[in-house]
Amino acid sequence: MTVSVGILGATGAVGQRLIQLIDPNPDFEIEALTASESSVGKSYREASKWRIDMPIPDDVAETEVVATEPDAVPDDVDLIFSSLPSSVGEAVEPEFCEAGYVVSSNSSNARADDDVPLVIPEVNADHMDLIEVQRDERGWDGALIKNPNCSTITMVPPLAALDEAAGLERIEVATLQAVSGAGYSGVSSMEIIDNAIPHIGKEEKKMETESRKLLGEFDGAEVHWHDADVAASCNRIPTIDGHLENVWADTAEDLSPSAAEEALEAYPSLDLPSSPDQLIEVFDEPDRPQPRMDRNLGDGMTVSVGGVQETTHGLQFNCLAHNTLRGAAGASVLNGELLVESGYL
Amino acid sequence: MTVSVGILGATGAVGQRLIQLIDPNPDFEIEALTASESSVGKSYREASKWRIDMPIPDDVAETEVVATEPDAVPDDVDLIFSSLPSSVGEAVEPEFCEAGYVVSSNSSNARADDDVPLVIPEVNADHMDLIEVQRDERGWDGALIKNPNCSTITMVPPLAALDEAAGLERIEVATLQAVSGAGYSGVSSMEIIDNAIPHIGKEEKKMETESRKLLGEFDGAEVHWHDADVAASCNRIPTIDGHLENVWADTAEDLSPSAAEEALEAYPSLDLPSSPDQLIEVFDEPDRPQPRMDRNLGDGMTVSVGGVQETTHGLQFNCLAHNTLRGAAGASVLNGELLVESGYL
Amino acid sequence: MTVSVGILGATGAVGQRLIQLIDPNPDFEIEALTASESSVGKSYREASKWRIDMPIPDDVAETEVVATEPDAVPDDVDLIFSSLPSSVGEAVEPEFCEAGYVVSSNSSNARADDDVPLVIPEVNADHMDLIEVQRDERGWDGALIKNPNCSTITMVPPLAALDEAAGLERIEVATLQAVSGAGYSGVSSMEIIDNAIPHIGKEEKKMETESRKLLGEFDGAEVHWHDADVAASCNRIPTIDGHLENVWADTAEDLSPSAAEEALEAYPSLDLPSSPDQLIEVFDEPDRPQPRMDRNLGDGMTVSVGGVQETTHGLQFNCLAHNTLRGAAGASVLNGELLVESGYL
Amino acid sequence: MTVSVGILGATGAVGQRLIQLIDPNPDFEIEALTASESSVGKSYREASKWRIDMPIPDDVAETEVVATEPDAVPDDVDLIFSSLPSSVGEAVEPEFCEAGYVVSSNSSNARADDDVPLVIPEVNADHMDLIEVQRDERGWDGALIKNPNCSTITMVPPLAALDEAAGLERIEVATLQAVSGAGYSGVSSMEIIDNAIPHIGKEEKKMETESRKLLGEFDGAEVHWHDADVAASCNRIPTIDGHLENVWADTAEDLSPSAAEEALEAYPSLDLPSSPDQLIEVFDEPDRPQPRMDRNLGDGMTVSVGGVQETTHGLQFNCLAHNTLRGAAGASVLNGELLVESGYL
Repeated sequence: MTVSVGILGATGAVGQRLIQLIDPNPDFEIEALTASESSVGKSYREASKWRIDMPIPDDVAETEVVATEPDAVPDDVDLIFSSLPSSVGEAVEPEFCEAGYVVSSNSSNARADDDVPLVIPEVNADHMDLIEVQRDERGWDGALIKNPNCSTITMVPPLAALDEAAGLERIEVATLQAVSGAGYSGVSSMEIIDNAIPHIGKEEKKMETESRKLLGEFDGAEVHWHDADVAASCNRIPTIDGHLENVWADTAEDLSPSAAEEALEAYPSLDLPSSPDQLIEVFDEPDRPQPRMDRNLGDGMTVSVGGVQETTHGLQFNCLAHNTLRGAAGASVLNGELLVESGYL
Repeated sequence: MTVSVGILGATGAVGQRLIQLIDPNPDFEIEALTASESSVGKSYREASKWRIDMPIPDDVAETEVVATEPDAVPDDVDLIFSSLPSSVGEAVEPEFCEAGYVVSSNSSNARADDDVPLVIPEVNADHMDLIEVQRDERGWDGALIKNPNCSTITMVPPLAALDEAAGLERIEVATLQAVSGAGYSGVSSMEIIDNAIPHIGKEEKKMETESRKLLGEFDGAEVHWHDADVAASCNRIPTIDGHLENVWADTAEDLSPSAAEEALEAYPSLDLPSSPDQLIEVFDEPDRPQPRMDRNLGDGMTVSVGGVQETTHGLQFNCLAHNTLRGAAGASVLNGELLVESGYL
Repeated sequence: MTVSVGILGATGAVGQRLIQLIDPNPDFEIEALTASESSVGKSYREASKWRIDMPIPDDVAETEVVATEPDAVPDDVDLIFSSLPSSVGEAVEPEFCEAGYVVSSNSSNARADDDVPLVIPEVNADHMDLIEVQRDERGWDGALIKNPNCSTITMVPPLAALDEAAGLERIEVATLQAVSGAGYSGVSSMEIIDNAIPHIGKEEKKMETESRKLLGEFDGAEVHWHDADVAASCNRIPTIDGHLENVWADTAEDLSPSAAEEALEAYPSLDLPSSPDQLIEVFDEPDRPQPRMDRNLGDGMTVSVGGVQETTHGLQFNCLAHNTLRGAAGASVLNGELLVESGYL
Repeated sequence: MTVSVGILGATGAVGQRLIQLIDPNPDFEIEALTASESSVGKSYREASKWRIDMPIPDDVAETEVVATEPDAVPDDVDLIFSSLPSSVGEAVEPEFCEAGYVVSSNSSNARADDDVPLVIPEVNADHMDLIEVQRDERGWDGALIKNPNCSTITMVPPLAALDEAAGLERIEVATLQAVSGAGYSGVSSMEIIDNAIPHIGKEEKKMETESRKLLGEFDGAEVHWHDADVAASCNRIPTIDGHLENVWADTAEDLSPSAAEEALEAYPSLDLPSSPDQLIEVFDEPDRPQPRMDRNLGDGMTVSVGGVQETTHGLQFNCLAHNTLRGAAGASVLNGELLVESGYL
């Protein structure tokens, strides 16, 4: 059975990645592409400034872009992927849910809402059932599901593995984030060539809250956030794709670096079409992972870890994921696949 | 009175910066330039692959490069600046000291030795008197003085200010380091364009030990290292000059961000010729300091700080310094100036 | 005598460079800064996203930004510098000229107009007298003077020297242009990191027409454009500042590379405050000039040349100039200085 | 039938690309990997500093590296690929040919020799029969075949198409070349970040001579070089892979841009396994091709062309190819495939 799909915000950097991932996927069929007013009525080729190093799929290129509103999307669309600016998402996504659409969203609005599942399938698939609470409370036929932001996704799988193994108490994380995370024109070249910027909007706060919700426990009614203390410092650097992060993790119990590496490698992936065979790849070389070298592992869906070492209080390590694949478009697609598998579609 | 100066390792990246700083300095006169075998006998212009964006000073350009050994350097040289590879420095610097030369060295060898002063003049000028212990123990007429490595220098002035204000207990630091820190050919372009490397040789260990020695107390006989817990994670990124660092500092006493900023700005500079008017510059803008924008503040000798904020355990901030000026050549020159002022020359 | 100055479009990349150059200039006093609607009423510090690696001059930072219209500018302003988008310049500059202001403009509109002087002072200062033709025809008390675009300015001084020495017949030029030439947000980082773009708006046409006007002869009534055949190919590359160009110049007479280098070095500069001592600097090293190494020669006002060699039809060489100093803001300031010296103010 | 293959210089940047291409190729089986003295006896994983963003193939990683001499290579190897430094190639390749090996070489030595085929299969496959002249003259059982250098390969297919259509008389070409063309450590990051270098060793001369040999006619006894006048200007820019070139081509007959585009698109590819379906891809968008966006077209074996326009003397266009695939490793592999098809193996 093929699932009919619509993409909200299809011309942006994440929208382009969604198309790259969904077009070849045999289970999904792209039926609708939406964008802002100025693009409506144009072919996708005209409307998007395509920045991926493969051509636009031919059928997508000729698709007419429609407005970002429920009436503009055909009724037979089963699943909506959303990568809208958060202010737009906040206004529009509930309209789609009310109109009966299930929305797998990458937009940052509503991620912390009590009744909105924030999910990385390999980490907390069980949180998806928060949909039932949501439908009860909001009276929707549709549903709103979120994936976390790209820098959070990069660190949470390894943190989940370590939490299981030794209990997390305190986290510090410094990020080295690629420019694609800010969208196509988010970072000008004059800002970033021969430079680095030690601040990214509300990113630090997002990492601190979203990670605790993801690592929390769902008791069937609500998610009890993990009580680890998380402090993030976010930097933009001159790389195209791939967020690299340095993490310090204080653990409740002692865990040797080699035991930590075993726990990381053993952390299970899922059978979803977009899940990588190996969720967490651990490098022996201390200078890996690196963005340009390792971001495409597992078709961009693997999280890489390296430099695991002991500190006085626990462990220190580096991790990397492709920010617009595992960290955004791929994350939404995975959630879409989980929705299909869980019978929500 | 002019001090006659020799430079060991004059053709390297730091050697070039030493020439840039010392040539216009009215108190110093360059008398000797040394380099490795293949450069000996050539003019400096021929021997060095000059990478600074100002021309080689004319008189320096025509100076003949000599061997890196005491006999090749004129006797009337009063002060030696050394930026040798550490393995060479380890072998050669003691020979110069034994031959009676005072050596202000940027090389990483011997920095942790008990009787070697490791000094940032504005932070721990009093450690310079360790020279007397050194001369007693080693029987030298000369002396060996070290500045710390570039990433350590960047964070220690702000840490010293915060230590004074509230007592440091635990430090985590993630660095975003410029390629010039690895020397002229240390990082190939294929390694670093569109990339970042989460590992730099023994840099993490250096930051952890050197910072504790610098912040320690000298009781006239030995330096009692600071007992703060320091954990560093070092990254190379595609910037030319300027090391940016994210620091978490747990403090013994509570210190509000605004009180911290006051303490940082009030931390005194010195009257040495190369000391900046303001040692620590504090930015209000959360996205500053940035390497390309702020590395040249105070002629490259200021340390910039920004993003000061509270954490559960203390403070978090960003800092930046020009790694080959404040962090290397300028650090050695400052130590040279302190040696002159302290009467060691 | 101090000349009171207004700057139109003061918040843009060239506007910032104008402030950097004019503020320390003892002959000029900044009286008015204009920008677009959204900036009016703000202090310059608030209105501009400053991108130059030195702080905003204090008095400029506190100046209130006014609207880009003659009424908003004090009457005692003697000279207007303009770096507006060309569509705005086209509408607004004539209004200032009609209101009696002399406008030295970097905007691309009107450069090819018959009665508008297009001037590089060291090359064709005599064209400035076209102002009289302009005033006759347009009935203005003020005047409109243009400098050419940044990529044209880079090659025209060496071409002028070679034209004098051997007569130019045909020119091909390929450019490697810095991102600052497109303004602060003109080139996004996703477009240019690890990339190059072989097309820049109407740049090729500008180089072909403006160079021929600059090298033309003014007979007191009109400029007879040079009849050399000029073909340009323009590329954007990931550099911050400095346009590098490869030029092939077919000459009417034979000219050896060494004779060409002599002619280039002997080409005279002027005594204007912003003219460099040496207008054209010739490098012997075949791999120079380079943007990062040589763009600041002569305080960014020198044109560098290297790689001069013979071809079957003439000569081939490389040239470089700082695109926002010599190529834009400095070019306008130089024209302002020439206006002062020529008595037009 | 599988061809047993040896790779000389297997650890370098081109050697790595040879492995990437040959390993998955069902017709070739890697039997021997050679490198310099310091690597001999190590596994390939230890010996090579792998820089390609996919893992080393497992079987290759464990292969023991042998010395670069005929005796170290098993006798059953049928075909040798060589990517040695030219000075080494000059000494060693003839020894392999004398020992009976057929060598498809990317090294720059001997490319201009009268009896050495210099071949781009889609352009001048018939030149391969120069092998018979070579064997007569040198008495070899083996043979030495060369592909041109990477910047030459990029422009010659479009030039061949235009030569057929309208006759080439004069060529000027400016290159914007990626750092991988200089090998793994050929360009240091301090040289090229925020910079460009207008000179690449003997590259200009290579482009001028190799292109004329490739476009020449082979009469069964010798190659008559094309008599077009070729002048090249070569630049290194901060891109990882992909050489972009601006070309001016004076033609004997008039050829409109649209007729030129037709001729380019119609220029035939071959049926060799590594030949792309479309040899020359023509872009309508004036800002294409771009290195990061288009270098991987046709698995890195397509040559892209854009910006075709008329000049007074003929045509002007831009072209791009992946310099280590189409321009080096892929070029050698293609020649190997042609050798197999032509029965020389």
